[in-house]
Amino acid sequence: MKSCVLGIEGGGTKTICAVSTLDGEVIGMGQSGTTNPNLASETEVKDELQKAICEAISNHRELSIEFICAGMAGTGTDANQTLINKLIRQILDLSSLRSLLSSRFNPSRNIYVCPDTVITLVAGAGVRHGIVAISGTGSIVYGETIHGQGVRVGGWGNLLDEGSGYEIGRLALQAVMKSYDGRANPTLLTQMVLDTCGLDSSDKLTYYIHRKDLSPSSIADLARVVNSAAIEGDIAARNILEKVSDELYDSISVAAKRLDFKNNDATLVLSGGVLTNIEMVRDRIASKVRANISAIKTIELCREPVKGAIQIALEKNVDCVKQGVPRK
Amino acid sequence: MKSCVLGIEGGGTKTICAVSTLDGEVIGMGQSGTTNPNLASETEVKDELQKAICEAISNHRELSIEFICAGMAGTGTDANQTLINKLIRQILDLSSLRSLLSSRFNPSRNIYVCPDTVITLVAGAGVRHGIVAISGTGSIVYGETIHGQGVRVGGWGNLLDEGSGYEIGRLALQAVMKSYDGRANPTLLTQMVLDTCGLDSSDKLTYYIHRKDLSPSSIADLARVVNSAAIEGDIAARNILEKVSDELYDSISVAAKRLDFKNNDATLVLSGGVLTNIEMVRDRIASKVRANISAIKTIELCREPVKGAIQIALEKNVDCVKQGVPRK
Repeated sequence: MKSCVLGIEGGGTKTICAVSTLDGEVIGMGQSGTTNPNLASETEVKDELQKAICEAISNHRELSIEFICAGMAGTGTDANQTLINKLIRQILDLSSLRSLLSSRFNPSRNIYVCPDTVITLVAGAGVRHGIVAISGTGSIVYGETIHGQGVRVGGWGNLLDEGSGYEIGRLALQAVMKSYDGRANPTLLTQMVLDTCGLDSSDKLTYYIHRKDLSPSSIADLARVVNSAAIEGDIAARNILEKVSDELYDSISVAAKRLDFKNNDATLVLSGGVLTNIEMVRDRIASKVRANISAIKTIELCREPVKGAIQIALEKNVDCVKQGVPRK
Repeated sequence: MKSCVLGIEGGGTKTICAVSTLDGEVIGMGQSGTTNPNLASETEVKDELQKAICEAISNHRELSIEFICAGMAGTGTDANQTLINKLIRQILDLSSLRSLLSSRFNPSRNIYVCPDTVITLVAGAGVRHGIVAISGTGSIVYGETIHGQGVRVGGWGNLLDEGSGYEIGRLALQAVMKSYDGRANPTLLTQMVLDTCGLDSSDKLTYYIHRKDLSPSSIADLARVVNSAAIEGDIAARNILEKVSDELYDSISVAAKRLDFKNNDATLVLSGGVLTNIEMVRDRIASKVRANISAIKTIELCREPVKGAIQIALEKNVDCVKQGVPRK
C-alpha cells in the first residue's frame, strides 16, 4: 500500500483531482465538470467530484489515502464547506473506495475543505500568508495574514465583479454597440468581435448576446480580442483594460489595507486567464502595487492551483500524524 | 357590424391588445405575456398574441376589423416584422375570427407591424416626428424625422444598455458589495436592498443574484430603492441615478444629432418605469436637453403606448380607404 494524499481544485468550469505520494510526487490526475455548489445541484456536485476522484486513482489499486484537501469555488460559507465535506465522505464510503483509506483516516479530521482562492495562494506564494488576485471568467481577491485571518474582496459573480474577463468581454460588446450607435468613435474591436462571433454586422450582436445557451465564459473569451486590439493601439480596448486593471488594483489595495500588509512583507499572486495572458493588465497592476504598496512583491502563478491543495494536504497530514490522530 | 381597428402593444413582459371604434373609443382590452420574438419561441409568441386578441374582442361578436397596428418589442429587423405579420394572419385565419374581418380587410395591406418605440412615440407626441426615450427594465432611444427616417440608439439588451432600470439595479447591488468589501463608503442602499431582497447580510446577496429564476425585472425593481435612497441624500444612490441619466441623455443627444433635430422643433417623449417614477432622472435629462438641444420640447408620456397603436391603425385605415384598397 502506497500512502498518498488527494488535492482537489473545484471551479466554475472544471474540477481537477490529483493524487500525490507523501514526497509530493503526483501519480494520478482526474478531471470533471463544475463542482461549485452555487452553480450546480448537490447531486451534480457529488457526481462530478466522484468522477474526478475515481479517475485520479483509477490506475492505483494499492493506494492508502491519508488526507484530502479540497479547494473549491463557492465555499466561502460554512454551509457550503460542510456540504462538500459531506459529499466527499459519501464518495469515500462507496465500497469501491473504502479499502483505499488509510487505517488512520478519520473523515472528520482528514478532509479539509477551503475556497479555491486559498489553494491558489498557496500554489503561488508557497504559504498562506499573502494575497491572491484571480481574474478569469470571474474575479476575486483573497488575502490571509500570518495568523490565519482571511479577507475576501469581490468575487460576487459576473453581474457585479468589475475585474473579470466577463467584464472585459461585456465592455467590448458595449464599445462595439456604442460605436455602431454613434455614441463613440470607431474601434478596431468592432471587426474583431464580429469575426470572433461569426457575424457580419453589429446589430446582429443583440441576438448573439440573447442566445439562451451563451455562457459567461463565451463573453469572457472576448478578452483575447480586447488584448489584441489594445496591442494594436486601439483606444477603446486600452480604456477597457485600464478600467478592469484599476478595479483589480483597488480590490488588492483594500485587501492589503484590511490585512495591514502595507507595513508587512507579503506576496501577491496573480492568477487566472486574464492575469496570465494579458500583459497590459498584469503590468499595470504590478506597477501600481510597486508604487503604492511597496512591501508587497508581485508574482505570477506558475504552479497549477491543485498543487496548492496537495501542499496543504501534505502539511495537514503531517500535523495529524504529529498530533497522533486516533484510528477509526 | 361595428367597424373597428385593433392596436397591439407587445413587450418583454406583457402584451396588450385594444379594440377601438373608428371614432377612437376603446371598447375592449386583452392582455397576455411576452410576444418579443427575441425572448420567446414562435409558438409562444403566437399563443400570447392570440390570447390578447381573443380577450380584447371576446365581448363583441358583431365587430368588423378594418385595420391592425402591432407595435412590438424586438421587431427592429425586417425578419421579425415579417414573422409577427405572418402570425397575426394565422390567428385571423382561425374559423372563430375569420367572420370578424371587414370585407375590405386584406392581410397584406391592413396589418402594420412596427417596433413598440414607434407606437410609444406616437402615443406621446401625437405624431411620428420626434424622439422617444424608454427606460424600464431595458432602455432604448428612437427618433423619426418628418420624412420617416428612423434612428435607433441603444436598446441592445440588459447586458449592454446603461440607461435602464436593470442597470440601476445592477449598480445598486454593486454599490452594496463595494461597501461590504470596504471598497466604498457605507451607503443607505445596503439596508434598503437587503430588506427588499429579504436577506440579513450583504454576503448572501451573491446567492440571491445567482438564483436561476431571478428575472431581469427583479433586478430592475431595485430602481425604486435607489430612488428612495437618493431622495434621502445618499451619495452612492445619487451617483447611480446621475450616471444612468447621463447615459440616456447621451443617447438622446446622439439621436437628435443624427436626425438633425438640433435645428428643428421636435418633441422628446420620456416613457417607461424609470422615467415615469424617478423624478431625479427625468429632471436631469430634461434640464440637459433644455440647455443643449433647445429646439426639443420634453414631455412625459401620459397615454398608454397601445393608444399610439390605435392612432396609427386609424390613420392607416383612412389612408387605405382613400386609396380604395381592393376588396379581397
